[in-house]
Amino acid sequence: MENFVYDKSTKIIFGRDTEKIAGKEVKPFGSKVMLHYGSGSIKKSGLFDRVVKSLNDEGIEVIEFGGVKPNPTLSFAKQGIKLAKKENVDFILAVGGGSVIDSAKCIALGALYDRDVWDFAERKAVAKDALPIGVILTIPATGSESNHYSVITNDEGPYPLKRDIIVENNVVIKPQFAILNPELSFTLSSFQTACGISDILAHTMERYFTSVNDVDFTDRLCEATMKTVIRNGLIVIQEPDNYSARAELMWAGSVAHNNLLGTGRAPDFASHMIEHELSAIYDIAHGAGLTIIFPAWMKHVYKYNVPRFAQFAARVWSVDDNFYSMESMALEGIKKLTDFYREIGLPVSLKEAKIPADRFKEMAEKAVKLGSIKKMTTEDIYEIYNLAVG
Amino acid sequence: MENFVYDKSTKIIFGRDTEKIAGKEVKPFGSKVMLHYGSGSIKKSGLFDRVVKSLNDEGIEVIEFGGVKPNPTLSFAKQGIKLAKKENVDFILAVGGGSVIDSAKCIALGALYDRDVWDFAERKAVAKDALPIGVILTIPATGSESNHYSVITNDEGPYPLKRDIIVENNVVIKPQFAILNPELSFTLSSFQTACGISDILAHTMERYFTSVNDVDFTDRLCEATMKTVIRNGLIVIQEPDNYSARAELMWAGSVAHNNLLGTGRAPDFASHMIEHELSAIYDIAHGAGLTIIFPAWMKHVYKYNVPRFAQFAARVWSVDDNFYSMESMALEGIKKLTDFYREIGLPVSLKEAKIPADRFKEMAEKAVKLGSIKKMTTEDIYEIYNLAVG
Repeated sequence: MENFVYDKSTKIIFGRDTEKIAGKEVKPFGSKVMLHYGSGSIKKSGLFDRVVKSLNDEGIEVIEFGGVKPNPTLSFAKQGIKLAKKENVDFILAVGGGSVIDSAKCIALGALYDRDVWDFAERKAVAKDALPIGVILTIPATGSESNHYSVITNDEGPYPLKRDIIVENNVVIKPQFAILNPELSFTLSSFQTACGISDILAHTMERYFTSVNDVDFTDRLCEATMKTVIRNGLIVIQEPDNYSARAELMWAGSVAHNNLLGTGRAPDFASHMIEHELSAIYDIAHGAGLTIIFPAWMKHVYKYNVPRFAQFAARVWSVDDNFYSMESMALEGIKKLTDFYREIGLPVSLKEAKIPADRFKEMAEKAVKLGSIKKMTTEDIYEIYNLAVG
Repeated sequence: MENFVYDKSTKIIFGRDTEKIAGKEVKPFGSKVMLHYGSGSIKKSGLFDRVVKSLNDEGIEVIEFGGVKPNPTLSFAKQGIKLAKKENVDFILAVGGGSVIDSAKCIALGALYDRDVWDFAERKAVAKDALPIGVILTIPATGSESNHYSVITNDEGPYPLKRDIIVENNVVIKPQFAILNPELSFTLSSFQTACGISDILAHTMERYFTSVNDVDFTDRLCEATMKTVIRNGLIVIQEPDNYSARAELMWAGSVAHNNLLGTGRAPDFASHMIEHELSAIYDIAHGAGLTIIFPAWMKHVYKYNVPRFAQFAARVWSVDDNFYSMESMALEGIKKLTDFYREIGLPVSLKEAKIPADRFKEMAEKAVKLGSIKKMTTEDIYEIYNLAVG
């Protein structure tokens, strides 16, 4: 096991009706809150009114700032920063999914910084302070509700740049609390739900596939998470109103990316980066891009750590052992994963997603090269795109 | 899944040499720290000097307060409270195992309270504030390094009273940070190590055995933890210097009792309470009392939730399925647990521990009656003691 630091976690308030105590949770942080949200579906569902009532009941003034879009942009966050400064808000409450939360984190940082918040993405400055933020989660997927990541797209330059905001002290932009009511995810479409499942599974696999071998405990925690996501993922696709299954998925989605599962391990975010190039050029949802790239990446790299892929097959997919050919186990595990992706209705090849094969070289060259199982080269990535054609 | 609140977790700093950064971690909290420890073995090992150096390097003044004994007492903690007030310390650094940490928590509460700190144990007052504390852990067992529990024995009355200190806001006495260096546990005796293993396993089983059935994710997290403790427990008993196995055990021990595993479930602390009566009368270590009581409790209650005990047998102990007789699976699982206890060198019957059978009635009457699988009655507990005779 490698040395690690596991920062303090976000306070989780989980279950039915929990959004009604938002006001009580915000109150210790101040009396003026920016309510940040997306498309406005929270107004149609009545969630907006319940949250505002809860805040007003505690004497908290609400500054409304809605309209965040998927892949939240810098220019929009800057409007929020301006508003937060002008209104002198004490706290930012994000109501929505990962895009809203990431945008809220960016605003929280910018509100206490005098220069351009993009400095943090370009490593020109290191953020040390931010407004406190809280979350009411409606989409289990990114895990942003209980981690310190904020992915923002800079739309101010000649071409869009999707980057991570980096802070010195991770705790600074980790939400103070996250309210997780599984019922709020009942109305997600089957496709949105499936993309969330794919994202959660990816966060877990990115930690599971490591070249550090003495990681027994976290291996098993990862396997527990994957088995939960697979079993309950299949249920929620069939039964969108199944509270138990939605609850399992929502809690697992948060734990999958709060970094408990990554303690003592070197993660492998290669697939993530290879997918980024795909969704940067073609209009494909992140979760749907991942289901195309992951099996291809696995087919390319499993030979660098066959026992780990055999363990994945046996423990996560109940593939029968075959100690004379761990390789056949590894391949069977990859097949089972692919079958699962199909079963939840997501594409498993570039062909299915109608993505052409003509820009692989360019994409392979541009992609950020990471890897723990295998450090990626341009050639590796080119080969992986080819394996993904289908 | 039941509604739950999962409070913020302690910051974990894990790995070799991590005690050397104690000073840097303490510094944000102040410049005068009480260094609280036990028998003085940390002086012989050189740990004390390393920690003091780390604190002094940061310009932090050290007030020494050692001498905590197993089952820490109120009278001793009160000496600490007096000293903390007199010296006006900013922070308490506990270096040791569960007893030292629990004592530090009691001192931290008392230092900011004007009346008798025992008020909190008697529910006469609710603690809202405490000095911040930090931990350097030397014994993986109680999990106190990352939770809010503090068990203190009141030795001031006519007979000893072992009680939990209760605080309104759990975060108040949760340590700010815990430094976990597995190497510090290399010198534990085989018996101390085994008692720690038993305690960690008990914390996990107490959450696993619940009557709440839709708890897929936390079931699997519990199983992951138990499998880790069993596999690595057997290794460390044979190889006390095995870093990897000590590391798995130390990290699992902390997660086992920081309450992640209890989220959304009703725990069953019946065995814990039944054991307390045993160690209150007879001189037996808590970990060794648990290995006697747990199998007896299981034999008595498994019939109230046979599928859960069959699942325990199958998933934790790899007992072959038998869908025609889940009961036989359940019993096989209990047998496997008992075999494991024997293998790590702990008693599995009252006879082995030389505890007589003449006070069962009195003990059964006095015991606190808890239970999720089965709410205990005096008759239940009497029967369990009889099953434990061996």
